[in-house]
Amino acid sequence: MVVCSLVRMPRRSLVNLVCFGNRAVSLLYGHSLRPLHTSTCNNSSQPKAGFKPEKVAVVTKTTRYEFEQQRYRYAGLSEEDLKQLLAMKGSSYSGLLERHNIHTNNVEHIVKSLRREGIDVRVVKRGEYNEEVVRWADAIISAGGDGTMLLVASKVLSKDKPVVGVNTDPERSEGHLCLPVRYTHAFPEALEKLCRGEFRWLWRQRIRLHLEGTGINPTPVDLHEQQLSLEQHNQAHRITTMDIQQSTTASPSMWTGTLNERFSKPSLLPIRSLNEIFIGESLSSRASYYEISVDDGPWEKQKSSGLGICTGTGSKAWSYNINKLSEQAVEEVLKIGMSQTGLDIPLNQGFIQKVTDEYNESLVFSPDDRRLLYSIREPIVNRVFSSSRQRGFASKVCVRSRCWDACMVVDGGTSFEFNDGAIATISMSDEDQLRTVLLEH
Amino acid sequence: MVVCSLVRMPRRSLVNLVCFGNRAVSLLYGHSLRPLHTSTCNNSSQPKAGFKPEKVAVVTKTTRYEFEQQRYRYAGLSEEDLKQLLAMKGSSYSGLLERHNIHTNNVEHIVKSLRREGIDVRVVKRGEYNEEVVRWADAIISAGGDGTMLLVASKVLSKDKPVVGVNTDPERSEGHLCLPVRYTHAFPEALEKLCRGEFRWLWRQRIRLHLEGTGINPTPVDLHEQQLSLEQHNQAHRITTMDIQQSTTASPSMWTGTLNERFSKPSLLPIRSLNEIFIGESLSSRASYYEISVDDGPWEKQKSSGLGICTGTGSKAWSYNINKLSEQAVEEVLKIGMSQTGLDIPLNQGFIQKVTDEYNESLVFSPDDRRLLYSIREPIVNRVFSSSRQRGFASKVCVRSRCWDACMVVDGGTSFEFNDGAIATISMSDEDQLRTVLLEH
Repeated sequence: MVVCSLVRMPRRSLVNLVCFGNRAVSLLYGHSLRPLHTSTCNNSSQPKAGFKPEKVAVVTKTTRYEFEQQRYRYAGLSEEDLKQLLAMKGSSYSGLLERHNIHTNNVEHIVKSLRREGIDVRVVKRGEYNEEVVRWADAIISAGGDGTMLLVASKVLSKDKPVVGVNTDPERSEGHLCLPVRYTHAFPEALEKLCRGEFRWLWRQRIRLHLEGTGINPTPVDLHEQQLSLEQHNQAHRITTMDIQQSTTASPSMWTGTLNERFSKPSLLPIRSLNEIFIGESLSSRASYYEISVDDGPWEKQKSSGLGICTGTGSKAWSYNINKLSEQAVEEVLKIGMSQTGLDIPLNQGFIQKVTDEYNESLVFSPDDRRLLYSIREPIVNRVFSSSRQRGFASKVCVRSRCWDACMVVDGGTSFEFNDGAIATISMSDEDQLRTVLLEH
Repeated sequence: MVVCSLVRMPRRSLVNLVCFGNRAVSLLYGHSLRPLHTSTCNNSSQPKAGFKPEKVAVVTKTTRYEFEQQRYRYAGLSEEDLKQLLAMKGSSYSGLLERHNIHTNNVEHIVKSLRREGIDVRVVKRGEYNEEVVRWADAIISAGGDGTMLLVASKVLSKDKPVVGVNTDPERSEGHLCLPVRYTHAFPEALEKLCRGEFRWLWRQRIRLHLEGTGINPTPVDLHEQQLSLEQHNQAHRITTMDIQQSTTASPSMWTGTLNERFSKPSLLPIRSLNEIFIGESLSSRASYYEISVDDGPWEKQKSSGLGICTGTGSKAWSYNINKLSEQAVEEVLKIGMSQTGLDIPLNQGFIQKVTDEYNESLVFSPDDRRLLYSIREPIVNRVFSSSRQRGFASKVCVRSRCWDACMVVDGGTSFEFNDGAIATISMSDEDQLRTVLLEH
């Protein structure tokens, strides 16, 4: 469904499409606390009429309660056993059940409100959400937290299909990519506003990925679902076994030919990143080795604890967390700076806080900005590995893996294998923008 | 063998025990570039006589070549197949073989030199190195890089047993916990100096660990060996399955009792950390949740990308890498600080570099210092999680895991499961010191 036909639709329903700020919570690193001021969004526009989709998919998160149930399902535990096991770990069964019920009630509220307007609603668990659902829907609602919103957005490739996030547990979830909290319990109000056109479209720039080279398994692993069985993460990524098995069943020349063919062309992945791409070893204790080329510049060997490339939207999420400075560090730098110059300027807490806040705010940029921001996390500089800029803007970043068992993680939720020899090209294209809405609060 | 009996030994041989600086390379984060000046080591002392052990264990690293061979062993690849596979990944088979041969030749040189002095030498691969070897030996030589040195040191619990590192591939390995490079090819010289007492003992403070609570598997996983099959890391840590299986075969009351008994008493782990303990989720893309109490202070909930606690020795390794600032960041802080005060001080590159270097050097402290330095890596501050100091000294740090699948990694090489409900107590004791030697260059 494109925009013009949506406009011509009879007044049957509304969907609230809100993108509240840049506070995407990725499972990786959380988010900042500052709201996105609408004035910083240059790429937003007044809609020509109300928004009234016919078919809406509601994608729901997996609650912690559901997760724990599924985790121990194979062991045949009763509810009572589950309760005791959770208690032993210091977790509360009744607490988890309570959050679960809050979420499911809020989902019901959303679904009922939509159906009351005559909208055809399909409720889909996040594990079942796929390209077919995206094609079917005129608009998609994410019912969960920011993590769910990121996953929902990741499969929407068209810049015309609206996506909305509704925070189904505001007390526990930050929900900064979601509706303002009040609409969680008053969803019909939001539907009204959208019907009347009392909102603005906001297109957020996103990242696209090309992968090539040996050892690529382009099958993504959903990190959230895979928590059920953690070694599935490695199993899903285990292309090494696959390429060995293929090689041993073929003649030597066929073997080389087959593998080269299969992996030599760069393939565009069917996923877009709203926040960031993180590249690094899967095992957190292992250093990452890779080569990087920025804007078609020379390749540089690096060793670090990983590499992140983010959008304006994502500049408030993981990227912010790895680049921000604490007041403790800023105070120390200023002290040293002052003593080196021989000056004696009083460094009171207020001053330190102002400098720290200004520094940290400078890490953030607008969601409609066409640039990528790359950050090298904890670079290791020694005889072998040099390091130029630790952070910078670019239009394109290429990375060649020299890792043992690394992954490329999209928005903290989807993981692709990225091992020794693989090359990723990270860039942006206007056609990848995500269509969201700013709803006046 | 204690010091006094070593002194009384006949002049049969010498062992070079050198600890060159604080530049321990952990697999996690590399190391700094600055040498440890002997003047900063307060806890070193002139030996009363020469050092002449009767039994020496030489622990050798696994070379990359050996690793690649073992990795594909199950696939039944020929050497020719291995060569092609490596080439496809952009690695050089002949290059790996060359480094392997350099290492094995250097090991042979060491072993021959020792045997020429009539010393009983046992050559042990790192995978075979254990407490029995430590008990047998009068002194232990690590033949590899800094990673091997860390592993060797980790199983030496007595402060009387000398440990030495010899760098068997100086062109590729930094070897800062090892002999000065020239002794790699001239080992008999080092033996001479030790025999004559031309060295100083250096005792380095180390960390001890107590673990308690549910979900603890006190069986350590060797991260280096486990690279052979990465899901073994998770399998080795999979206590969750174990405790479920045990619970389902016992009656409800027996079940609770058995598990509580098994995990409720804090147990002292048979390992000492020379560099640092890293605590965090195993999967690098997942945020870590835990509670921390410093010097018996109040518990504080935190969310971050991990927690590190290091020694003076380790303050130049992983801790240094996560805390150091780039010139880019320092320049920005100084610019903001200057503009906030309205001053106009020229910030030339030299000035920025001086401030950066002084800041980074302040992160380092002496190997004989009895304090721990804890660092919260990339803290996430929001409504739920507060953050006091990001870094600080302490005598004791307690951590309670709230993680899904986390580990406690010792010196980047040995990993213990550390999941939801487990409690670790991290402290120091003089009896845990590691006996090493400063050999005059």
